[in-house]
Amino acid sequence: MSAACDTDNLSINLATVREQWDFAGAVDGCLAAGIHAISPWRDQIEKIGLSNAARIVESNGMRVTGLCRGGMFPASDAAGLKSAYDDNRRAVDEAAALGADCLVLVVGGLPEGSRDLPGTREMVAEGIATLLPYARANGVPLAIEPLHPMYAADRACVNTLSQALDICDVCGEGIGVAIDVYHVWWDPELDAQIARAGAKGQILAHHICDWLVPTRDLLLDRGMMGDGVIDLKRIRRLIEEAGYHGPQEVEIFSQSNWWKKPGELVLSTCIDRYRTHC
Amino acid sequence: MSAACDTDNLSINLATVREQWDFAGAVDGCLAAGIHAISPWRDQIEKIGLSNAARIVESNGMRVTGLCRGGMFPASDAAGLKSAYDDNRRAVDEAAALGADCLVLVVGGLPEGSRDLPGTREMVAEGIATLLPYARANGVPLAIEPLHPMYAADRACVNTLSQALDICDVCGEGIGVAIDVYHVWWDPELDAQIARAGAKGQILAHHICDWLVPTRDLLLDRGMMGDGVIDLKRIRRLIEEAGYHGPQEVEIFSQSNWWKKPGELVLSTCIDRYRTHC
Repeated sequence: MSAACDTDNLSINLATVREQWDFAGAVDGCLAAGIHAISPWRDQIEKIGLSNAARIVESNGMRVTGLCRGGMFPASDAAGLKSAYDDNRRAVDEAAALGADCLVLVVGGLPEGSRDLPGTREMVAEGIATLLPYARANGVPLAIEPLHPMYAADRACVNTLSQALDICDVCGEGIGVAIDVYHVWWDPELDAQIARAGAKGQILAHHICDWLVPTRDLLLDRGMMGDGVIDLKRIRRLIEEAGYHGPQEVEIFSQSNWWKKPGELVLSTCIDRYRTHC
Repeated sequence: MSAACDTDNLSINLATVREQWDFAGAVDGCLAAGIHAISPWRDQIEKIGLSNAARIVESNGMRVTGLCRGGMFPASDAAGLKSAYDDNRRAVDEAAALGADCLVLVVGGLPEGSRDLPGTREMVAEGIATLLPYARANGVPLAIEPLHPMYAADRACVNTLSQALDICDVCGEGIGVAIDVYHVWWDPELDAQIARAGAKGQILAHHICDWLVPTRDLLLDRGMMGDGVIDLKRIRRLIEEAGYHGPQEVEIFSQSNWWKKPGELVLSTCIDRYRTHC
């Protein structure tokens, strides 16, 4: 088996097993399964404490392929914008402490009561530009994650790779994109935009899961690789041809299915499907 | 009250009241509310019979702003493709008999078992090109309706105005787009693509409803204008600036709310919200 097919290049986003394990339990579970890369969420880190989490990462030689998440920049007033900025600085600090490959940015949607999508997008671009110097100073690359257009209102108003890369182009060094197949698989410009990102070394993460038919919930019904309709191998090829050969990170929110199964079974299925479908 | 604010330019897509009324009942309901434009679905026409439906339309002087729907071109074998083509010819016949402004095309998603999105999109482009001469010969403009990316797998793999207009550009005369705010409001290229469509006279329909936060169902949880986050007036302005001054057509699929209310209340609410929010 080639290295590219083994679990060396597989990471588990800990949202995938958030109902089964806390941070320490998830790390143990991954290690037992032969997985040495993870991407935790900030609430998982907060529960155990940042220094404890960093110690567990270091002592076990885990790679942290990303910290989820910074972002949520838009707000309806100056106090809200300031609060978001402060929180994002803390997220950078945490990513640095964990030695994360990047801080994933879910940029945020419309402020309460707003219908101004273009204005909200400007707020996001400004928020990112303001945060970037602090991230650079702390050695933490920022990874803008374009989210599926069905989240434009309430989670992220950056909804295509093209849009994210336009922001990166304005910002310069220290920023790129997290490409999650769930969010971008439908994009008619996918091939061109992946190539564009790769040409500038802006692919910082590659998240995988699958799009189920039917999808029963907008947020919590993601599929395991192979159970849906995304051509994962094709997207992986595009990403590799664009020059990114880093980990594929499994990120599955699945309230009625995978979150209800034993963590060990989830991880062994991730490994199987990674080998056969990714 | 200016003409642009009155119901002269309001159309009701009959899916909006499909649980309350059959075709004849819906026409009566619209007339009673002072609405003289409708857009029926083919199953509604089939139930009453095409000639009966056409007689009702004509005798009441109703404008038919579109027939929903043709499309669903992709198939996994030649027989399926032929069947889709035959059905689309019938849809053109029905649109012609009703004097509809256009036949709305919901182009279809991945064939059963397929993950080949680029190939499916080619199938759609071919299907449209094959149908177009028949539509032209019958005087029925085809209106490609780009659907929200969350329907890319199972309903329509044409997911942006840009994509639809690229198909139109290849096809030439007799084809344009139906712009439904629900499907396109998130699009970062919205302004430019509406202008592009208008410059060539390719805006054939303008559908309205709203995007609810939260959205509880991918298909059947559309909102009444004003209850969600879409900046309807802004999009209307873009469409008018692009040269389209035709009807705004209300199309709301709402299983747990509007489909449960009396048809008269739904229509009076449509009129109120059209006047205040659109």
